[in-house]
Amino acid sequence: MSSLQGVIERRGQRIFDLVDQYPESIFTKAGFYQKMMGISMRDETFKIQMFRFVDVLASLRRSDDIVEHLREYFHGMNGFVPMMQTGLRVAGFFPWLTASILRRNVSGMARQFIAGKDGADVMKTLRKKRRQKIGFTVDLLGEAVVSEKEADEYAARASELLETLARETRGWTDPLGKNAELFPVVNLSLKISAFYSQMDPAAPEEAIAHLVPKLRPILRRAKELGVFVNFDMESYAQKNATLDLFQQLFTEPEFKDWPHVGIVIQAYLRDAERDLHDLIEWGRRRGTRFAVRLVKGAYWDYEKIVSNQNRWSAPVFLQKPESDANFELCTRILLDNESIVTAAFGTHNVRSMAHAMAYAEEKGIEKTRFEFQLLYGMAGPIKRALVEMGYRVREYSPVGELLPGMSYLVRRLLENTSNEGFLRAKFAENLSPAQLLRDPNDLITSNGRIPPPVETPPGQSHSADGADQETPPGDSYQNAPLINFVHPQNQEQMRAALRQARAGFGRQYPLVINGEKVTTGKWMKSLNPSAPNEVVGEVAEAGIPEADRAVEAAQAAFAGWSRTPAEERAKLLERVAAGMERRRFELSAVEVYEVGKAWEEADGDIREAIDFCLFYAQQMRILGRPTLTQHVLGEESYQHYWPRGVALVVAPWNFPIAILTGMVSAAIVTGNTVIMKPAEPSSVTGALLMEMFEEAGVPRGVLNYLPGHGSVIGQHLVDHPQVVMIAFTGSREVGLRIWESAGKTRPGQPELKRVVCEMGGKNAIIVDSDADLDETIADCIYSAFGYQGQKCSALSRLIVLEENYDRVMERLLAAAASIRVGNPEEPGITVGPVVDERAYKRILEMIEIGKKEATVAFQAKNVPNDGYFVPPTIFTSVKPDARIAREEIFGPVLSVIKVRDLDQALEVANSVDYALTGGFFSRSPANIERVKAELVAGNVYINRSCTGAVVGRHPFGGFKMSGGGTKAGGRDYLLQFLIPRIVTENIMRHGFAPEETPRFRAEFLVRPGERKS
Amino acid sequence: MSSLQGVIERRGQRIFDLVDQYPESIFTKAGFYQKMMGISMRDETFKIQMFRFVDVLASLRRSDDIVEHLREYFHGMNGFVPMMQTGLRVAGFFPWLTASILRRNVSGMARQFIAGKDGADVMKTLRKKRRQKIGFTVDLLGEAVVSEKEADEYAARASELLETLARETRGWTDPLGKNAELFPVVNLSLKISAFYSQMDPAAPEEAIAHLVPKLRPILRRAKELGVFVNFDMESYAQKNATLDLFQQLFTEPEFKDWPHVGIVIQAYLRDAERDLHDLIEWGRRRGTRFAVRLVKGAYWDYEKIVSNQNRWSAPVFLQKPESDANFELCTRILLDNESIVTAAFGTHNVRSMAHAMAYAEEKGIEKTRFEFQLLYGMAGPIKRALVEMGYRVREYSPVGELLPGMSYLVRRLLENTSNEGFLRAKFAENLSPAQLLRDPNDLITSNGRIPPPVETPPGQSHSADGADQETPPGDSYQNAPLINFVHPQNQEQMRAALRQARAGFGRQYPLVINGEKVTTGKWMKSLNPSAPNEVVGEVAEAGIPEADRAVEAAQAAFAGWSRTPAEERAKLLERVAAGMERRRFELSAVEVYEVGKAWEEADGDIREAIDFCLFYAQQMRILGRPTLTQHVLGEESYQHYWPRGVALVVAPWNFPIAILTGMVSAAIVTGNTVIMKPAEPSSVTGALLMEMFEEAGVPRGVLNYLPGHGSVIGQHLVDHPQVVMIAFTGSREVGLRIWESAGKTRPGQPELKRVVCEMGGKNAIIVDSDADLDETIADCIYSAFGYQGQKCSALSRLIVLEENYDRVMERLLAAAASIRVGNPEEPGITVGPVVDERAYKRILEMIEIGKKEATVAFQAKNVPNDGYFVPPTIFTSVKPDARIAREEIFGPVLSVIKVRDLDQALEVANSVDYALTGGFFSRSPANIERVKAELVAGNVYINRSCTGAVVGRHPFGGFKMSGGGTKAGGRDYLLQFLIPRIVTENIMRHGFAPEETPRFRAEFLVRPGERKS
Repeated sequence: MSSLQGVIERRGQRIFDLVDQYPESIFTKAGFYQKMMGISMRDETFKIQMFRFVDVLASLRRSDDIVEHLREYFHGMNGFVPMMQTGLRVAGFFPWLTASILRRNVSGMARQFIAGKDGADVMKTLRKKRRQKIGFTVDLLGEAVVSEKEADEYAARASELLETLARETRGWTDPLGKNAELFPVVNLSLKISAFYSQMDPAAPEEAIAHLVPKLRPILRRAKELGVFVNFDMESYAQKNATLDLFQQLFTEPEFKDWPHVGIVIQAYLRDAERDLHDLIEWGRRRGTRFAVRLVKGAYWDYEKIVSNQNRWSAPVFLQKPESDANFELCTRILLDNESIVTAAFGTHNVRSMAHAMAYAEEKGIEKTRFEFQLLYGMAGPIKRALVEMGYRVREYSPVGELLPGMSYLVRRLLENTSNEGFLRAKFAENLSPAQLLRDPNDLITSNGRIPPPVETPPGQSHSADGADQETPPGDSYQNAPLINFVHPQNQEQMRAALRQARAGFGRQYPLVINGEKVTTGKWMKSLNPSAPNEVVGEVAEAGIPEADRAVEAAQAAFAGWSRTPAEERAKLLERVAAGMERRRFELSAVEVYEVGKAWEEADGDIREAIDFCLFYAQQMRILGRPTLTQHVLGEESYQHYWPRGVALVVAPWNFPIAILTGMVSAAIVTGNTVIMKPAEPSSVTGALLMEMFEEAGVPRGVLNYLPGHGSVIGQHLVDHPQVVMIAFTGSREVGLRIWESAGKTRPGQPELKRVVCEMGGKNAIIVDSDADLDETIADCIYSAFGYQGQKCSALSRLIVLEENYDRVMERLLAAAASIRVGNPEEPGITVGPVVDERAYKRILEMIEIGKKEATVAFQAKNVPNDGYFVPPTIFTSVKPDARIAREEIFGPVLSVIKVRDLDQALEVANSVDYALTGGFFSRSPANIERVKAELVAGNVYINRSCTGAVVGRHPFGGFKMSGGGTKAGGRDYLLQFLIPRIVTENIMRHGFAPEETPRFRAEFLVRPGERKS
Repeated sequence: MSSLQGVIERRGQRIFDLVDQYPESIFTKAGFYQKMMGISMRDETFKIQMFRFVDVLASLRRSDDIVEHLREYFHGMNGFVPMMQTGLRVAGFFPWLTASILRRNVSGMARQFIAGKDGADVMKTLRKKRRQKIGFTVDLLGEAVVSEKEADEYAARASELLETLARETRGWTDPLGKNAELFPVVNLSLKISAFYSQMDPAAPEEAIAHLVPKLRPILRRAKELGVFVNFDMESYAQKNATLDLFQQLFTEPEFKDWPHVGIVIQAYLRDAERDLHDLIEWGRRRGTRFAVRLVKGAYWDYEKIVSNQNRWSAPVFLQKPESDANFELCTRILLDNESIVTAAFGTHNVRSMAHAMAYAEEKGIEKTRFEFQLLYGMAGPIKRALVEMGYRVREYSPVGELLPGMSYLVRRLLENTSNEGFLRAKFAENLSPAQLLRDPNDLITSNGRIPPPVETPPGQSHSADGADQETPPGDSYQNAPLINFVHPQNQEQMRAALRQARAGFGRQYPLVINGEKVTTGKWMKSLNPSAPNEVVGEVAEAGIPEADRAVEAAQAAFAGWSRTPAEERAKLLERVAAGMERRRFELSAVEVYEVGKAWEEADGDIREAIDFCLFYAQQMRILGRPTLTQHVLGEESYQHYWPRGVALVVAPWNFPIAILTGMVSAAIVTGNTVIMKPAEPSSVTGALLMEMFEEAGVPRGVLNYLPGHGSVIGQHLVDHPQVVMIAFTGSREVGLRIWESAGKTRPGQPELKRVVCEMGGKNAIIVDSDADLDETIADCIYSAFGYQGQKCSALSRLIVLEENYDRVMERLLAAAASIRVGNPEEPGITVGPVVDERAYKRILEMIEIGKKEATVAFQAKNVPNDGYFVPPTIFTSVKPDARIAREEIFGPVLSVIKVRDLDQALEVANSVDYALTGGFFSRSPANIERVKAELVAGNVYINRSCTGAVVGRHPFGGFKMSGGGTKAGGRDYLLQFLIPRIVTENIMRHGFAPEETPRFRAEFLVRPGERKS
């Protein structure tokens, strides 16, 4: 290798020498751009604000709006510490900026990186480059494709571009001549996700089934025209599907012998090496040459953030030199297999280039049998050097409008200012060639935080991302990971679990009272809402006598459980969490059948249940330690908590494991004993939860499983004098009844009844005139229609500012028309059946009411006939006082309300009885702050969906008629299940007292279980 | 001074030389004692446990009990870190100890310091000492005197001792001969507090009026017998009274010319110098010689703890060298005034002695005109050296039984092991003479924490005892100081305030609605319960229309107030606190008249109100800062709190400012608006609170003052749909009615009604068989009868273990018979009138019921006829199921229940409907831990009274039928007035997000005031 390193250094030095011959600044556009990049590199806060401003700018149409945004983004900036450090005052920097100057400057910046508006426009650039012996691959920029309409439009634009390029370049020849047959002049890069709006990582076959017929005509035409086609890579979620699609399409007889096709390998991915090997094997099987563009990868921040948020191990290397080293590894693999694959090295890093050159030399591969691909508008001197050295250079040339180009622009700005980027190191920081040409393997730090390659085991936190070292063990909490369905083995496991669950249809589940199975002679059937003739299971129906026995059992068990140390109770929850993790797919599968959840929705529900167990275990550990109230000489005064007694948990069916587990685990970990009444439509899921607590070793009587009819046993239990705690989540009607009933103190009742009450919502999202519509549309569709709108957090009212209304609605309606409605047994379904016939009828009735009050702007057609499928429906021209704008519907129905401005938007949003969730899409800092302050909701979400609260991160719950402000999954939640108690000891005896406070014996502070009353 | 230092060093060196001639160990008793002292000096934890064990030992009668206590005190000790450090294992140290060996050893230790059991017994010692030319002063040890019976017994014993000593020493002559007329052979030290059980710092005249006739015969006889009488000094609380008593008595014609009287000056007191000057001036006026014993002071820990707990500036110097230096200052004053005062230097410190010698030489005072007083059993070699040098030496010789001697023993043990003590430095640590003889002024560290000489201004914390430096400003909280009535100027201010209040009798107080004074034509009179013909004031009576107007005003004010930043709301409370501090005596005085509170009780109530303001201000500052829920890349998720809306506060009369302020200030600081309905008997006090909020600038409508009849406006307001929060403290009956009524959600009601509900108690204290009865009796009397038992925390059931029963009852009944019942306008009253005629009748009725259920063991006689004075009453032979053992009486009535053992005690204690406060007196670590764990009460108090919870230190409130577990003055309290809200922002835009979380703009997170519903 060291001889290779010598060659690398010589080749690299040569490039640098050539680059330095032409003292052109890397930032070719001087003035605004150069100044901005300079500050951005010195000041992180400025950089963030600047790039955010650039991001929003293209969507602003009014000049005053542009100036206002500028003011908001940089207001008070020179008060920021980092700005002070740079010694720069924005106030002195910006006054000469007007809206038009700004727009011109930013447009200028964008034009630096975007090669042209369209096919015709781009030709000017391509011709100029041709004169410099630089080739091109053209990429069609576009907004995120959120509907099939947009996908179709994109496909049409791609076809048109293809034709234009072919036509306009007729007669062009290869600039180098040699090996020209490998490198057609016209090279088109296709962004696969733009061809289908419903790609779901869990359903790659389905995506491919849609994409193949869509791409085939374009490919056919390209082949006819002798155009090279490259499949670009975007985020990791689409990677496997894109690879599969590539292989499947180009194995088709029609394309099997076509050599001018290529795909991208992203070296920052840990999968890259394996994927590359697989591709090469495929290529050899196929028997025709193909190409691979090797890049580092452009979504590093995004992948890191997404995996962190979902608690996945990062698919990308976390150290930049790791990606660089992997790039070199893949370079060698490519060149080792030059006989079947043509390599394109997509990099601006001279070291990476020099390595490829050196290794190719070592392998005796001609200079002209591979190429370097660099981005349009960047690293001009390097391109020139490469050309001069006789290498092939191709520019990646984006084509498109300013608006969709902004996200591309921001990525380029980030790349140029990145601390770890090559260009910054070379051209801004002037590192020496020796430094720049070092072997990246030598730069990988051994203490770099390299996460484990597989998902963390259940209930354990990532060691790499572990909590503060000072936190006592057991006090740190991290969410369980979601199942990442991008991995085929997870898809497989889910399918197997579904088969298994189906095989168990019809099983009978008895009550569990005091640890014993109890049947009552009556069975309640639980049906599959996708196919109501299928009986998922039958549960015993409890009556009054069983309810009384359960209270007795819970009361008896309280004696022991209330005295069990908090640590042991916390451990029980952690065992339950581990059990859920073990039976994770099984539980998901049952939910798919019992309540009609889509795969990811079901998995999210299990994840949330696990999180509740882990979070409340951690919280109880913290609360379980008595804390000194105040340091006073001669006294020890400690606060600690006692459980309340027997708790009744009444849960809904829509998060059948999560919400049930949340309330049950909170009650149990705090030392209370529990009677758990699951909702009737999800009683089987409830039985499984009981099983898991039993497997985890819950003592008899501490948890009792009591399915039955709310009208029979619910009221009886609420009124029972020994039931002192009621945790309820469900409808407003039932919640208010429980609240009222629990207010009455009955003879023999030992405590005031405490009710934790979570009810409904009528949730609004406001769309500002500068909202990023790519995100807005996708998130609103998901918020409104995910799980058929059967979430208390679901979006029910979309409030759109009139300035933006038409654009929003156009994309929204098209997006709604594109979502998949069907049996959620299949992956990739957004909308399945509603839970039961009652819900089905109720929702259809509300739709009928809506039709009288407003306009049906969209209603899905072709929903399945069997099962309780309600067509997703969007109403427009909805008045704020319409019933569909005020009453909770709990189904896939969205009311859209057009408003004049943000004042009116807030007024409308806040005008309902509920205050559960609310959302806002905007890129105006001032408006965001205002909505944060004024939107009346328990959970306010900015620039994201209003559903999907994560335990610990988004303590969940509302107020007004949405509930008591209880915040499940929040730090205050457990307090509601506890009684605070103070123990004060005078530790002064005859005038002397220890100066230091001894450790408190926490384990003694348990409540005496047996109380006479 | 430096020539003086030279003499000091020479004299000191001479003492050391003489001491070293006789290589006698300082710890003359070898074996157990020596070993124990050795470990104690090395191991602080062992020392504490050992001394505590010594403290309890004398009260243990059964051998197994002694062994059990030993085990408990040292169980697990060698697991303690400090023990590990000493490398010592208690397990290896104690196995040879049996109960009798232990008792013998500890008795031996006690005998080392106690000169004899009684007058006859002590003579043996005194004769032996006479042979060593050492004189004596005899002190009579005794338990704390908790009743007049005990005081009488003490006086009798003192007389007897006087006679015995005079008789047995007949013919003894002065050992030195010279100046013998100044130093009678017999010298008797009197502990003044033992002659009167009801000494109250606020009422020194009253104490003196009792003490003068009691002491006069003893003094008269001493004078006759030629005996010297010295008044000892104990705690600071009695110091002024003792000084006054001394001067008053010895100015009486009978004693005016008696030179053989002395008093103690404690050099550790900051007052010492001034007191000494005053004494000398008095002596010169009197014209007869007298004596002063100058000591450092023996209650340093106690004074420091008491002042810290009451937030007083410490009356003692906090650095040992300061006391030493002050001792020298006082030495010089004494010697400067040798013409009128004879000095006795009570010290073991050779430097202090040498300084006295040197200064006396400088002044030309003969060696035999002053004396050194050292403690019996300590510093033998030093005494011998002093004698050899020709100085007068007198031993302070305690006489008494083992049990009362234990506290004296413990003080000696502490002195011997003190890190700062001279004896330890010299004899255990062998410091060099040069070190030991240094000028103490050179040892005072400039950064020593010397607190300011005056009480800290209101609302500010002691800078010296300030909180953690890392705590943000405003986050630290410290209780306001109590008024220290030991200072005459405070007594004066209180008297002036009472005159002022009386002058204001009959004033009329209108309602305050929306900042406006409102009258209704109806006036409710508020009477003085000590003299019901006196009208303290008249308040306007609100009806339904005023209630509705108040709700409207509060609703309207919510818009602005809910948007007012938390910091401003906190500041309002702090201004209210400052106003209360300013008007502190005025408020107390009104309470004395309106609800019959004793001085200290009234002041405690104002202090608590101030504390509530300060504490909730601090808590709101903490809650007012949004907190990140979890650190996740690409997201900012903050939790913060919103107010609820209009709150109704319904308060009781028994803490007329404190509880009202607590609920009002909590509701207001959290951003709610309030309708405050004070209890009818304390409406005038309520009006003053309104005034104080107005003075502090509460915006109009934010607080509305609405006195009236609960039956009329209370129910109406509770049911009002716009009242969403009710804070109630009062009776169980009313509490349950409010709880039930608030459960109903009415049309137009925006929120579920939240009720903070504090009700009654039936509080028990358990007295263990090893309890320290000195503390037990005093604290139980105070807990049961303080403020006439009209505290929800008051002791109502005294549960006594049978082993101890007779001893407890004997002292308890005598103590009860000694408390002062009367008009609390006078200071020093324990029991005043109950609040009104209704209460008076109800309590007398309960006493009648008690008479049928149990035995009246005590009932006070001679209570005033006017006013609602209920005689303090103690029932014995009370069965646990008697009505007087189960129902709240809320008056000066105590039921005593005898139980077999702790099991039964807990069973009885926990068998009532209530769970508010509870107490336990014990010195068994195991029993204490058990009761901490098992006593069912919201506030459990060990070895102290069960009343007098302090805000922040003892968050207050109970469960079961005592309330909702809400804990006023605790860290969870404000949460009940708030709604948690989460604001989550996706801060990722096109794949990029700032790595660092920007600061959150807290001020924006205010609730929009106007809500449509």
